[in-house]
Amino acid sequence: MIPKIAMIGGGSWATAIIKMLADNTIEKEIFWWMRNEEAIAHIKAFKHNPNYLSSVEIKLPDANISNDISSIIAAADYLILNVPAAFLKETLKDIKSADLKGKKIISAIKGIVPDENLIIGEFINQKFDVPLNDIVVISGPCHAEEVALEKLSYLTIASMDVELASDFANVLNTRYIKTNVSDDIFGTEYAAVLKNIYAVASGICHGVGYGDNFQAVLISNAIREIKSFVDAVHPIDRDIMESAYLGDLMVTAYSQFSRNRTFGNMIGKGYTVKSAQLEMNMIAEGYYAASCMHHINQKYKVSMPISEAVYHILYENASPAREMRLLTEQLN
Amino acid sequence: MIPKIAMIGGGSWATAIIKMLADNTIEKEIFWWMRNEEAIAHIKAFKHNPNYLSSVEIKLPDANISNDISSIIAAADYLILNVPAAFLKETLKDIKSADLKGKKIISAIKGIVPDENLIIGEFINQKFDVPLNDIVVISGPCHAEEVALEKLSYLTIASMDVELASDFANVLNTRYIKTNVSDDIFGTEYAAVLKNIYAVASGICHGVGYGDNFQAVLISNAIREIKSFVDAVHPIDRDIMESAYLGDLMVTAYSQFSRNRTFGNMIGKGYTVKSAQLEMNMIAEGYYAASCMHHINQKYKVSMPISEAVYHILYENASPAREMRLLTEQLN
Repeated sequence: MIPKIAMIGGGSWATAIIKMLADNTIEKEIFWWMRNEEAIAHIKAFKHNPNYLSSVEIKLPDANISNDISSIIAAADYLILNVPAAFLKETLKDIKSADLKGKKIISAIKGIVPDENLIIGEFINQKFDVPLNDIVVISGPCHAEEVALEKLSYLTIASMDVELASDFANVLNTRYIKTNVSDDIFGTEYAAVLKNIYAVASGICHGVGYGDNFQAVLISNAIREIKSFVDAVHPIDRDIMESAYLGDLMVTAYSQFSRNRTFGNMIGKGYTVKSAQLEMNMIAEGYYAASCMHHINQKYKVSMPISEAVYHILYENASPAREMRLLTEQLN
Repeated sequence: MIPKIAMIGGGSWATAIIKMLADNTIEKEIFWWMRNEEAIAHIKAFKHNPNYLSSVEIKLPDANISNDISSIIAAADYLILNVPAAFLKETLKDIKSADLKGKKIISAIKGIVPDENLIIGEFINQKFDVPLNDIVVISGPCHAEEVALEKLSYLTIASMDVELASDFANVLNTRYIKTNVSDDIFGTEYAAVLKNIYAVASGICHGVGYGDNFQAVLISNAIREIKSFVDAVHPIDRDIMESAYLGDLMVTAYSQFSRNRTFGNMIGKGYTVKSAQLEMNMIAEGYYAASCMHHINQKYKVSMPISEAVYHILYENASPAREMRLLTEQLN
């Protein structure tokens, strides 16, 4: 049986994964749901996504691209969730547990479901009764823009069922994509969420006037915060220096193009949260993540001074300069 | 007794440390040896180093700056070695063990003594009979240029005698310099040497055409190589994610201004080693380090594929593109 894989979401990361799936040589059928009807019409007419990674040629049959989520989900065995975490509940509002029965759910989202304060895997497990063993997480380090350019990138594919992770890795591998397989869905998802907060922190520090020397100290402390947190939440034997954790943190925190870093930089330079969001015309994932992680960590009480500093600045109106000065006393 | 501290070397890192010592408020006497007589005359006349960090005001008495190394060494209790590793033997050629007796030796050099294949601490210990307990290592992450700008930076001061490390840290702390104390002179020195090789590797990869996604994978593998090596050489309990190890690696490998990265980039773009060195008008420390580490690792036989790839490219005329493609198969 050839695998039937559906992408849920139409952004740049979704477009990048569509490209990988299409370039991978294993026979498969690909379906694509996105909300935006104009984008769908454009893709059908011109074979390119008008809004994201427009250079990528889209080779799907017209009939496989739709904004009817129920039919797309019904058609597929593997669903790749790839909408912003903040819109996941809205996207799936008409979907019932029965609709997902027997399907494998792959999270390509790096975020926490707002209000629920759950990572994607937990949310799908609890809300739709999908067994944790049927959940897969895709993680970087991977800027979608470099996938479009076919620059060599390594993905980590995690599932408690490592055979499932391995099967799914096999449909993503291409000349420019290498995959690692992992059994750590919790650590991989949380690390992917947390890194966005540290990218915001990097941006704030840069905006306030700190330099590269401090940035290196910040990130070397950030990876230790990630380790402390994921070890508390899901204590398994993991090497936090692997690319899904440390690599993903570095590619985000050191990127000049990261939206999270740009957002933080504006905050550091004195923009309010509201004005930075208006100016950027989007909301950085790290903004939501800072709040969700603050609340989730009420339970675990892990010492996370960087993440907390970002929370104080974004949600409690703390002065970026003062908060970062206090933070410097807690780093080493 | 007020400490008498001599700087041996006249480069940018030496100038940066002179500034820290001068800005630190503990009473001390500072001496400065450098080879270049014209630079000494300029500093005495204009209070600025003409060649490095020229914005930094030099506040030393004229009599304390000299190119007579014996008199400078005789005057001081603490000697900070800060010449390129390749010139250390030449610099100290007229110095005898008796001249260093009772003095504390601080290595601010990040390199291996050529021919000897020893880190600075070992070399001083073996050649001049200075007890290992009297040796101190200064490590970053710290670009000298940011010290000149008084950007907050964290140094790690390591000695097997942690009280000595702590005392020396106290004469460096300023508003813009925070210090960590460590007992790991071997790990700190080797990590500082190895990071230059990985900065060359980063540059080569960039020159060959790899992007930021791969860079993050490369560096997340590089820190694991560093950990494997220093654990083999000096197995103590250390957290390789601390800023002296991981931070120092990141600040170097991610810097657009690193000479090692620039050198590697030229190699990746097809320059020969000779022509890259001529073009840059200097030799990157990572060039020497790759050879020294290759030879030192004959003894330890730690798996170090990145470091070995750089060695093959720089010393065995291996094709950068081919060697890096082979390397990608060994990373994860």
